[in-house]
Formats: sequence, structure tokens, C-alpha cells
Amino acid sequence: MAYQSKIAEAIIRRLPIYYRYLDQLESEGVERISSRELGNRMNVTGSQFRQDISCFGGFGQQGYGYHVPTLKRHIGEILGMDRGYAAVLVGVGNMGRAIMSYDGFRKEGFRIVAAFDNDPHIVGTEMNGLTIRDFSELEPFLEEQKIDVGVICVPADNAQMVADLLVNNGIQALWNFAPVDLHHPDTVKSTNVHLSDSLHILTYLMNEDALFEKKKNHSLT
Amino acid sequence: MAYQSKIAEAIIRRLPIYYRYLDQLESEGVERISSRELGNRMNVTGSQFRQDISCFGGFGQQGYGYHVPTLKRHIGEILGMDRGYAAVLVGVGNMGRAIMSYDGFRKEGFRIVAAFDNDPHIVGTEMNGLTIRDFSELEPFLEEQKIDVGVICVPADNAQMVADLLVNNGIQALWNFAPVDLHHPDTVKSTNVHLSDSLHILTYLMNEDALFEKKKNHSLT
Repeated sequence: MAYQSKIAEAIIRRLPIYYRYLDQLESEGVERISSRELGNRMNVTGSQFRQDISCFGGFGQQGYGYHVPTLKRHIGEILGMDRGYAAVLVGVGNMGRAIMSYDGFRKEGFRIVAAFDNDPHIVGTEMNGLTIRDFSELEPFLEEQKIDVGVICVPADNAQMVADLLVNNGIQALWNFAPVDLHHPDTVKSTNVHLSDSLHILTYLMNEDALFEKKKNHSLT
Repeated sequence: MAYQSKIAEAIIRRLPIYYRYLDQLESEGVERISSRELGNRMNVTGSQFRQDISCFGGFGQQGYGYHVPTLKRHIGEILGMDRGYAAVLVGVGNMGRAIMSYDGFRKEGFRIVAAFDNDPHIVGTEMNGLTIRDFSELEPFLEEQKIDVGVICVPADNAQMVADLLVNNGIQALWNFAPVDLHHPDTVKSTNVHLSDSLHILTYLMNEDALFEKKKNHSLT
């Protein structure tokens, strides 16, 4: 949950959202925008936005607003998107395939250079230009190649074992899709994609009116 | 980004995380826990946790801490997990399959009762006990059945069209996996799973030390 970072978690969470909106604006041909307008589009106040990005140095000019392509590039740099990180993916089930086949990541400078599975029906097959390798080849592969990120798409029961193997072989960052929280040294960075969290937020929103209706009725009796 | 709800977005975001930790504690056999201990486990302060759940009425007893199974059930109820919401899924590609094959959702009272695609190679095949239906059957299906949630797993270009069709046929909530933000009436609830956001947070964390190192050096010159 907490990211152990220099910047407040809430701000870090907003950066990718800012990036997405700026990308959208750029594709709409918008070249310059005020922080107030930008805030309106992104559902934050202009001053919130200014404050957030001031953590990384100021990019705007008072009275002139922001130059959209420049601001997008700056935020992309903050997000490390110019680094061209290389990743291995472990677990080529449905989720693994979904990630491998999403072209957007490559566009953003994130390259999955190899994928591994332990199912003999999957090993040797092709997926998005990669031949799936046997899991036993993962360790020697990591010894030879400089890999930054491990993408974990294995079932929950195997996720910690895979994480340990990746970390013990020099991987510094884990992108985890298994529905468990992983243990790893503090020096290793990780994010978890808990799909059920977003489902629970949705069902909360669906349930909210009834919830407060019930509470109101209770307090009347 | 904003949820247009009665409760602050940050609190809503934390509820599913609390639920996951309580589920974990229960499975470890922990029966009673103080808010301070609970906070430690979940990386928030005890008072933050108490404050968050006090929005929904208090569940603890001063000095006795929380009864884990009761608190878990209460938070589950807040999250609408006792409602047994029914869903249709549109787009049985890799992501759609990943969601259909995840048993955890059913355990949590969320049922995908039908799945639709427009690919003749996919229509008619079986997936997790469901026969995939042709997309043209979606509208008549929604007229006959009471469905709460539409799960959108189609490519970005088709997502808004699918969302419109779902909403026009009475769907009140959209769980969107397409990498676009959808437009819909305010009465409809929605959450977006933007996988790239979590990747960007990860690459930000990997990049952070270098980022601030660079900044420090700049300010010295």
C-alpha cells in the first residue's frame, strides 16, 4: 500500500493520470492549457495540480499556462518512461497473455524481452513475437541479461516463490498480478494490481445510496 | 478519477485494502486486533483506520479492539459484497478470459452470468462453464435478465459503443478494462482498470532516486 518513497503516495498515484490526460490533450491537438483548465479536465483543482508537479520543479510560466507536449514529456521523464526498462514475464496464462499482447506498454518504453511458463503445452509456443521459454531457463537467462522488471502473472500459490527467484537473481522491480502481497527487501520496488480492489470500489459506489439510506432510517428510530 | 460519492475518494480506495488484510488475518486465525496493530499491518495509523471506518458507524469497542470476523463482514457489507451482483462481460479476449477464469470474484458474490464477443471463432466456445454468445444477443439478453454490472474488455476503439449499449439497456455500473475513459450519465457508476497506471507508478519508484539525485546536482551548480 505505501510506496516508501520521497513523495506522498497520493501525488505519485496522480502522476500517471496526469500523463494520460496530457496524452489525450496532445492527441486532440491542444498545445497550451492553463492549470485551471487542466485541473477541470482531470477533476482536481488547478492549485492541486500546480502543487503536485512543483515537487519535481516548476514547468509552467505564470500567465502563459503549460505547453502540453513539453509538460507531457516532463511528466513522462518523472515516470521513468524514457528509460526503456526491460522486463521478463512469468506465467503465460490469460493475464500474462493480456499483458504481452497490449501494445501500449511498448509504446511507453516498456519492453517484455522474454516470457516463461512451466506448462509444456505453453512452452515453445509463440506469443507477440516471443517464443515462450521453460521456467527452468529463467535463472540462467537473468544471469546473462540485464533485466529491470519482473512481471508476475502466476497463480497466487507460486507468486512468492517466483518473486524470490527474481529478486535473488538481481531483479529490482516487481509488477505483480497475483492476488497476494509479496515480501521482498526494501530496496526492491513493487506494485500490485489487485483487480478485486477496483471491483470492490465499484460495488461500494453501487451500494452507497442504500447504505446511507439505511443509516438515516436507523438514526430516526 | 473522482467517484462523485458521499465519502472522500481516498477513504473509498482504502476500504478494499482493509478488507483484504482482514481476510488475511482471519485466514491466519487472528480473532481480535487493536486498531494500532491493524494499522501497523496495513501501513496506516490506527487513528486513520478508526477515522475511516467511523464514516460508516463505529465497529470497535474502546479497549477491546476489533473482532476480526465481524469487522471483515461489516466492511464487506459496506463494499456491497453481500449483494450478489450479476454481470455480463463483453470481449472474450485475453483480458476477458483472465477475468472469467478468476474464481475469487465469485467467492466475493460477484457473478458473471453471460459473456459476449463478435469473433465467430470465439462465439459458441466454452469458458468457465459459460458458452460465449454472439454480441448481437447482448441487447435482447439485457431486456430479459436483471443485470447490474457490465464488464468491458473490448479494444479501446469499441469501448464507448459497448458502454452506450449497456447503459441504454439499463446497466447501472461499468467495470472498464479498455484503456480509455468512458462517458456515461452521472447516475451510472464506473471504475477503470488502467494497467499502465500501476506500471507507471512502478517505473516512477525505480526512477525516483536518480530523479532527486539529478535535481540535487543541478541545484549545486
